[in-house]
Amino acid sequence: MIELTILGCHSATPRENKHTSSQLIEVAGNLFLIDCGEGTQMQLRKSKAKFSRIKHIFISHLHGDHFYGLIGLISTFRLLGRTTDLHIYGPVGIKESITLQLKLANSWTNYSLYFHELSSTESELIYEDEGVTVSTIPLDHRVYTNGFLFTTKSKMRKINTQAIEGLELEHFHFKQLQQGQSIELSKGELIENEKLTFSPDPPKQYAYCSDTAYNEKIIPLIKGVDLLYHEATFLESHSDLAAKTKHSTALQAAKIAQAAQVKKLVLGHYSNRYDDKAAFIDEASRIFEMVFLAEDLKTFSI
Amino acid sequence: MIELTILGCHSATPRENKHTSSQLIEVAGNLFLIDCGEGTQMQLRKSKAKFSRIKHIFISHLHGDHFYGLIGLISTFRLLGRTTDLHIYGPVGIKESITLQLKLANSWTNYSLYFHELSSTESELIYEDEGVTVSTIPLDHRVYTNGFLFTTKSKMRKINTQAIEGLELEHFHFKQLQQGQSIELSKGELIENEKLTFSPDPPKQYAYCSDTAYNEKIIPLIKGVDLLYHEATFLESHSDLAAKTKHSTALQAAKIAQAAQVKKLVLGHYSNRYDDKAAFIDEASRIFEMVFLAEDLKTFSI
Repeated sequence: MIELTILGCHSATPRENKHTSSQLIEVAGNLFLIDCGEGTQMQLRKSKAKFSRIKHIFISHLHGDHFYGLIGLISTFRLLGRTTDLHIYGPVGIKESITLQLKLANSWTNYSLYFHELSSTESELIYEDEGVTVSTIPLDHRVYTNGFLFTTKSKMRKINTQAIEGLELEHFHFKQLQQGQSIELSKGELIENEKLTFSPDPPKQYAYCSDTAYNEKIIPLIKGVDLLYHEATFLESHSDLAAKTKHSTALQAAKIAQAAQVKKLVLGHYSNRYDDKAAFIDEASRIFEMVFLAEDLKTFSI
Repeated sequence: MIELTILGCHSATPRENKHTSSQLIEVAGNLFLIDCGEGTQMQLRKSKAKFSRIKHIFISHLHGDHFYGLIGLISTFRLLGRTTDLHIYGPVGIKESITLQLKLANSWTNYSLYFHELSSTESELIYEDEGVTVSTIPLDHRVYTNGFLFTTKSKMRKINTQAIEGLELEHFHFKQLQQGQSIELSKGELIENEKLTFSPDPPKQYAYCSDTAYNEKIIPLIKGVDLLYHEATFLESHSDLAAKTKHSTALQAAKIAQAAQVKKLVLGHYSNRYDDKAAFIDEASRIFEMVFLAEDLKTFSI
């Protein structure tokens, strides 16, 4: 299960009720933050999330609408008395920028801050624990940019409650079965795992792709994901602007979703020039049916 | 006339409806910004000010709640197509911090950005035009900090409408009178300026003092100002915290106001620990009567 909360999904300049990019991902006991536009800490408070639980922050690129709220959040963690380590993943330069501002404020964090600077143009695994992996999705933008792919691990086989009926199983038998082992009953009888369990749920996958020009290279990396957030800064009527600024249109996002055979597509990173967002759905749904609009503080479950 | 708009008056961490330090000053045709906490650009939009008119920004110190919104505002000016020069006044290091972030975003401004880095511990004149001067008020805080004193110039004498009755005055005569010159009528008659005019309005003064410990050294610099904004992060019940963090209590702010014989005192920069602000007025008004509370988006006229 992956729970996604959109904290902000608008591009360029933050306005009242139009917050710039940031997302919260609750998965396998982690609370991850992706991107951190100015004002993200206020959105975190509004979302009612226990944001002190965030231990890993993934920054796609160093444009202000994805990054200028990070120093404030780091500073607020300090003021709230945080002692837990914080890991920041982002383009080379992110460490220098944050540490310079902490130095000028003479306000070093009283918790440890670890920077994981990214520079590869190939997808790489950047985080892994027992329940989830996070890898990069290299994107095509005006500056070095990565999307992020979250993949849950499915470790536990599921007990077939009908098949175990009548067997005298101890607690440790259940553990062994979930872990894929065959079991030995107290009378010495051996039973193969497959006879008593079902396969685990398939892994769940969430892909965040913002900001990027239309880029078919990402298709194999996001093949079949359960949910794809793909930027749609523009409509096709402004495809020239999209090309010039290395952003995508709603139609281009849908093309990527279709080619990658993803299950659901969520559009966001809208340009401020559009008041009515219905046209984004109309344009994308011409070629991809399961398309949804991101909204600030909207949640999606996978 | 000086028009002051409080954009944010809370300390430390920005929250919904509790914005960190920033103020707009409309004076002598200028729109000045003092300090720029995270989210200031959203507050500027809410205030309905034509904030593209801001040409000079004064930053007291490089703590986040006074500074972390500046890079976002600079970036927004770029996105809005600004071409007018922008002047930034603040502690040494402000240029490096802002330019590093612009470099990392590969987003240089298409307008000229001038940094005026401050390092003096004596008051200095940092801005002057025909209508106003701005000078620093060195403060006592954990990092190098300046308050700012705005003083209007009173150049124009005021026409005595009763005295000029019956005289045949041309447009240029009015200008001469306002500028303090005596005039010659068309018949050759000379009239002394003082007979037809009153003295100009006295200059108006606004002093911004945040953040600072109780500091009697500022008293001669702010003597008799029309309005003093003095930080009151704490109440006397937390005077130990005030001393430790180099902030002031409401009572200390009032003592400064009293000693400097200012006309009005406005308190702000409240710690988030206080929900009810009435106690700030109660405490300060024990020794200084004309005391007011800053509130986000409240305005004061001088």
